[in-house]
Amino acid sequence: MNDTNGHALASPLLTDLYQLTMAKTYVERGMHGEAVFEFAVRGLPATRNFLLAAGLEQLLDYLESLRFGESDLAWLEKSGYADNAFSQFLRGFRFTGDVYAVPEGTAVFANEPLVRIVAPMPAAQLVESRLINLLQFQTMIASKAARCVLAAPGHQLVDFGMRRAHGAEAALLAARATYVAGFDGTATVLAGRLFDIPTFGTMAHSFVTAHDNEEVAFEAFARSHPDNVVLLIDTYDTLRGARTVVDLVPGLLKSGIKVRAVRIDSGDLADLSREVRSILDRGDAADVQIFASGGLNEYALQDLLAAGAPVDGFGIGTDLDVSSDAPYLDCAYKLQEYDGRICRKRSAGKETWPGRKQVFRRAAADGTLVRDFVGLETEKLTDNPLMIPVMRKGRRLHEPEPLATIRNRSAASLATLPKNLRALDQAEPYAIDISAEVQALADEFDRQLAL
Amino acid sequence: MNDTNGHALASPLLTDLYQLTMAKTYVERGMHGEAVFEFAVRGLPATRNFLLAAGLEQLLDYLESLRFGESDLAWLEKSGYADNAFSQFLRGFRFTGDVYAVPEGTAVFANEPLVRIVAPMPAAQLVESRLINLLQFQTMIASKAARCVLAAPGHQLVDFGMRRAHGAEAALLAARATYVAGFDGTATVLAGRLFDIPTFGTMAHSFVTAHDNEEVAFEAFARSHPDNVVLLIDTYDTLRGARTVVDLVPGLLKSGIKVRAVRIDSGDLADLSREVRSILDRGDAADVQIFASGGLNEYALQDLLAAGAPVDGFGIGTDLDVSSDAPYLDCAYKLQEYDGRICRKRSAGKETWPGRKQVFRRAAADGTLVRDFVGLETEKLTDNPLMIPVMRKGRRLHEPEPLATIRNRSAASLATLPKNLRALDQAEPYAIDISAEVQALADEFDRQLAL
Repeated sequence: MNDTNGHALASPLLTDLYQLTMAKTYVERGMHGEAVFEFAVRGLPATRNFLLAAGLEQLLDYLESLRFGESDLAWLEKSGYADNAFSQFLRGFRFTGDVYAVPEGTAVFANEPLVRIVAPMPAAQLVESRLINLLQFQTMIASKAARCVLAAPGHQLVDFGMRRAHGAEAALLAARATYVAGFDGTATVLAGRLFDIPTFGTMAHSFVTAHDNEEVAFEAFARSHPDNVVLLIDTYDTLRGARTVVDLVPGLLKSGIKVRAVRIDSGDLADLSREVRSILDRGDAADVQIFASGGLNEYALQDLLAAGAPVDGFGIGTDLDVSSDAPYLDCAYKLQEYDGRICRKRSAGKETWPGRKQVFRRAAADGTLVRDFVGLETEKLTDNPLMIPVMRKGRRLHEPEPLATIRNRSAASLATLPKNLRALDQAEPYAIDISAEVQALADEFDRQLAL
Repeated sequence: MNDTNGHALASPLLTDLYQLTMAKTYVERGMHGEAVFEFAVRGLPATRNFLLAAGLEQLLDYLESLRFGESDLAWLEKSGYADNAFSQFLRGFRFTGDVYAVPEGTAVFANEPLVRIVAPMPAAQLVESRLINLLQFQTMIASKAARCVLAAPGHQLVDFGMRRAHGAEAALLAARATYVAGFDGTATVLAGRLFDIPTFGTMAHSFVTAHDNEEVAFEAFARSHPDNVVLLIDTYDTLRGARTVVDLVPGLLKSGIKVRAVRIDSGDLADLSREVRSILDRGDAADVQIFASGGLNEYALQDLLAAGAPVDGFGIGTDLDVSSDAPYLDCAYKLQEYDGRICRKRSAGKETWPGRKQVFRRAAADGTLVRDFVGLETEKLTDNPLMIPVMRKGRRLHEPEPLATIRNRSAASLATLPKNLRALDQAEPYAIDISAEVQALADEFDRQLAL
């Protein structure tokens, strides 16, 4: 991947061409007035009762480091996308705007602005494509992961999805988003290194089939990784695999090696886990845990646990890392205001609420969410406005948050969700009111447009 | 994205941890014997009658450049994943294996090996996660894109999906895969630069709303981009937008500026395109084309064209870049042989066919595909074996293929598909025979296992 990696991903050219064509015109016309854009999810997928905001940290990294290098400019000029004047503008370009955002790890809903950008028009426009690309992905994955966490409280959950994730960055950011949502770690080594997330992994079926038989494979692995003995027992016959483990345990114990767990990756996991548990318990291996994987998602977790499957931990891959039941969010980054004038798009089915907005949250005495209000930032509808300033004139206002902080916020925020929203089944949508002031602004705009 | 970009994506740590734990044991036990792995898609999604192979070039790049750097090794040692001996092995590690593959742009089916890796066991194992990550994504996207191409023959198709793609690499590789499948280009600028793919783009709704009115916005854009005038007309009212264009055409023509097209991004595209066509034709703007976008996919293209919608080109985004109806392929990379001994996994629902296999293709006199045979590479079942050697001892055997070559191969391969497979509706699966020799090998293996 020489060509799409390296410094390429930080490239300002990772954008839709129209951001550049529009910026060129803005610059030519001197349209450097202040623009206000807001990012929001227009509607939740049918299988989501809430979303968990994520991806802000990567957005702020992007905004702080955005630069057009000489080779970018040379390419733009050669391609006819920049003349001298525009190239000169881009050479000096820095993102100098303000950013307001709902902190990562906060449960959020449809039509709530999650990020607001206030910047000179060309800058606010140029960042759109990557902003959406970064915010939608992690928010989508964190939301899927949160459902798994809610479906299997107290169980170890590990992200196994790298191979089916959509490319390298998706794999890495999925590991981050799932950890933020409450997962215990990931199998993706580089995510462990980059984000300091616990990493998990032992053996694949190929390891077993490469050896003469299972017993040899298991013993070889245990002696090679005495502190991390998790044995994959379903390569040929799961129950026979469990009995092989039982046979090996005493000999390994004599060498001071404990088998931590067995992993089952196929078949009827509820039945098999019960039978394996029984084989292990009868075989003096009651402290060997059972780890399950293979085609899992939040529904499978719920069903397995409801069926009393004695599974201690789960590895969740494909369905999680591609959010397979909802592989995108219907989200948008919309111009709310330009140079003091409110703006509103009225394209069929894509109308936006105008103004600089804030999300106000009302909770019951025990913390349970009652209702959100989307009002103007100047209103004061409850004591809990969710959006806070995070960047001023292109500089972060705070140090990057440790993942542990975001993870704790996620747990706290999920705990405030009413029971019906925490359930996997589709619930009555959470109540969100659009304030009278926002509605009046929209009406006023439409009246002017009609003139 | 400072942390997940840069040299990070080329990192050998972009893998599942178990590849490293297994490799450590292989190295300790001296298991450097020749391993044979094959990559195949186990079953097609219900909405795919064929797949289009893609992603091989990026895989070969990865294999050629794979190195463990000192900082990788230091991290592995600190994390307890490598001791001195394993670290020493990794320091000198290079991929020195052979690779056989079906060329990119070839139509393929379930259970057909697309890539075979023959390498010392630790090497063959270490590359698994990224190999799957690269091959599944582009194959999945090229397959989705091919359906769009078949649904709208002769129409301009442009990839608009960057913002909803799963991260940066997904956006870039989606642009490549869709172009390979027959798209005309992409909106993603960096993909244009990296892969030399034509780029497309003009304006968003925000550009229109930022100006005092549509007429001012259109004229400003046209004068700023006289060679690329495509005007987005649905921000407020599509038909009014079309009439505004008609009013502007004569004045712009006087300045030598031609309006190339209008774009409609919302509403009933069939009805609107007809009405807009009529407004343009009556308004002396018959040569202004109509470009449509907004929630499109292959079904929408087929329906629009069946309804006679006078649309010349389409921008296709989200559904394409996330392959929303089939956001992953059920694929695997399985050990076929180790050190001269055949290997076979028998996990429920995941059984594999053993041996070094080849795909043989039989076509009718007019080129139409009749049947594929999956046999051993030593068999000769037809004159058309699909897999060819592409890497020997870690070195490419050929120069990287120009995208135009792959794109032509795609067009030729799609043309050989029987009509029912080219249709969007689910067809009777294409006939694939597993040869008697492969079956005999599987039976022999199972007999030995039972002993």
